[in-house]
Amino acid sequence: MIKIAIDGMGGDNAPYVICQGVNRALKEFTDIEVLLFGDKDQITPLVEPNERLTIIHSEEVIEGDDEPVRAIRRKSKSSMVMAARAVRQKEADVLLSAGNTGALLASGLLLVGRIKHIDRPGLMPILPTASTERPQLLLMDAGANADCKAINLHQFAILANLYAKRVLNIAQPKVGLINNGAEASKGNELSKKAYELLSQEKRIDFVGNVESSELLTGRVDIAITDGFTGNAILKTLEGTGKVIFSQMKHQLLNSGVKAKIGGLLIKDALLNLRDQFDDSKAGGAILLGVKGAVIKAHGSSNEEAIFNAIRQARIVHQSRVIEEFTQYFEESTPINE
Amino acid sequence: MIKIAIDGMGGDNAPYVICQGVNRALKEFTDIEVLLFGDKDQITPLVEPNERLTIIHSEEVIEGDDEPVRAIRRKSKSSMVMAARAVRQKEADVLLSAGNTGALLASGLLLVGRIKHIDRPGLMPILPTASTERPQLLLMDAGANADCKAINLHQFAILANLYAKRVLNIAQPKVGLINNGAEASKGNELSKKAYELLSQEKRIDFVGNVESSELLTGRVDIAITDGFTGNAILKTLEGTGKVIFSQMKHQLLNSGVKAKIGGLLIKDALLNLRDQFDDSKAGGAILLGVKGAVIKAHGSSNEEAIFNAIRQARIVHQSRVIEEFTQYFEESTPINE
Repeated sequence: MIKIAIDGMGGDNAPYVICQGVNRALKEFTDIEVLLFGDKDQITPLVEPNERLTIIHSEEVIEGDDEPVRAIRRKSKSSMVMAARAVRQKEADVLLSAGNTGALLASGLLLVGRIKHIDRPGLMPILPTASTERPQLLLMDAGANADCKAINLHQFAILANLYAKRVLNIAQPKVGLINNGAEASKGNELSKKAYELLSQEKRIDFVGNVESSELLTGRVDIAITDGFTGNAILKTLEGTGKVIFSQMKHQLLNSGVKAKIGGLLIKDALLNLRDQFDDSKAGGAILLGVKGAVIKAHGSSNEEAIFNAIRQARIVHQSRVIEEFTQYFEESTPINE
Repeated sequence: MIKIAIDGMGGDNAPYVICQGVNRALKEFTDIEVLLFGDKDQITPLVEPNERLTIIHSEEVIEGDDEPVRAIRRKSKSSMVMAARAVRQKEADVLLSAGNTGALLASGLLLVGRIKHIDRPGLMPILPTASTERPQLLLMDAGANADCKAINLHQFAILANLYAKRVLNIAQPKVGLINNGAEASKGNELSKKAYELLSQEKRIDFVGNVESSELLTGRVDIAITDGFTGNAILKTLEGTGKVIFSQMKHQLLNSGVKAKIGGLLIKDALLNLRDQFDDSKAGGAILLGVKGAVIKAHGSSNEEAIFNAIRQARIVHQSRVIEEFTQYFEESTPINE
């Protein structure tokens, strides 16, 4: 049995979509057990009774605008903190939340705990690309560490590489360093140092610098950067997609009858397009570098996204990749700059 | 007469599109004079004779992959370096090139020269947004300085603010700092320090942090960041737009007859949409902080983009904003951290 601790109160549409996702996952996956943390009165009517589901009442909720570290310290009876504690105490294998990202990162770091010799865990979303050969891109770090050293980027690459191999079954993941130019000499101080470390690292297939214009084209499986830049890129991707689709709708509705009819005819094609860039299918972002699987579903997750994050939690656990990380970094000589 | 020194050999489609743009601009603007630097044999048949056009022969070309500083030192007879020298020697008022960005930045810095008390000039593209209220966004720095200090970001804000007022006639430009969260406490070391400086700066209307998901929504007129992050954002914007439009075309052509017909009907609406995000209308990116107007047109510029960059060159010169910068920074107490 794979035990998944779920924060029932995190995210824009909690607890409703969380419960919907849990209901579906329990039906589909007979090898999972869910510990669902949240307000019992709210949650009970939303879930279908199941012997593999335990609702654990929590009195507090960490809100989206709570200051992360303070929130996990002060709100010790919140659904997120209680779920994280369950993973720490080995009562559950995976932690899943759609709540406050910063608080979840802090929970991972302070409650679940860092893997030995990992300086900074990183947050890695899985992004859909336009490529059929490489339909997914792993972006690491997408925001856990606003300030990074080159050694952090080196560790991100090792972690993401193992994840891609074990969880996504990519035989030889291509790893690129996000930079402001293709040449090895390009970059800021951090990326220049990281380039050096990555190009000497034999355990990964480092293809050199990638520019952020190439991320959706499938040039690499893994793009490594610091959490500030990664966050800026992730939010630019999301923002641009949203703006283009909304402007397209606007144009179709306001360019006369012809465009309106055309809009109806292309509806399916547009839905396909939206599906292609729909990140709810890929699962959540995973916090790599802590002693447990910690998955962050998007705050605006729908049922589908929660279901897919649970599916991802299951695969991550089955892959035993977290144990492999732990062993890898604890036993090997620490990576140094 | 406004004298514009143009690098006739820079960019993917040079000298052809450069000459086309020059022909059109000379017809439209009777108050400009163009010094066109390049291979005389190639250029002469492409331009329409005009008494306000002087072709100045150059023997070398700086290529896209030339190392910038070395290129401008070694290729002293290149079209870009000769055009930059014309501005330095006050034979021209504005420098315009669609060539190697790094080399143009180096030309601006080393040949045209920094304004006193400006530590680092920044590159500022003008991006189309989805907002009718704020149809343009100034992004500064988009790649001139991979490593920045907070004082640089402070100066970028002052420069961009004056540009928005004088050249774009925005009475009170809203200035935001690109950050990984809305709260003042968010960010990396650099953005936290920059936040402090900007929030104390009375000469700008600082609205606080903006996330990169908000850049195209018109929340601010000016978004300030370091050149590494700015470059990553700019390239993500360009890459995402390109991928979405190309996938849309693919979907319309491959989703059956209905979608194909629909595609034909919405063609105009889609062209409107593309037009809306077409940065060739906005002009080039401007290097702010040097003692002359230096404008970088996109490497893939078409005639329209070159024409608009010349139009922009003319407005920048007429606005006297460069003189104002120079005076402002030379006379005022230097801004310190």
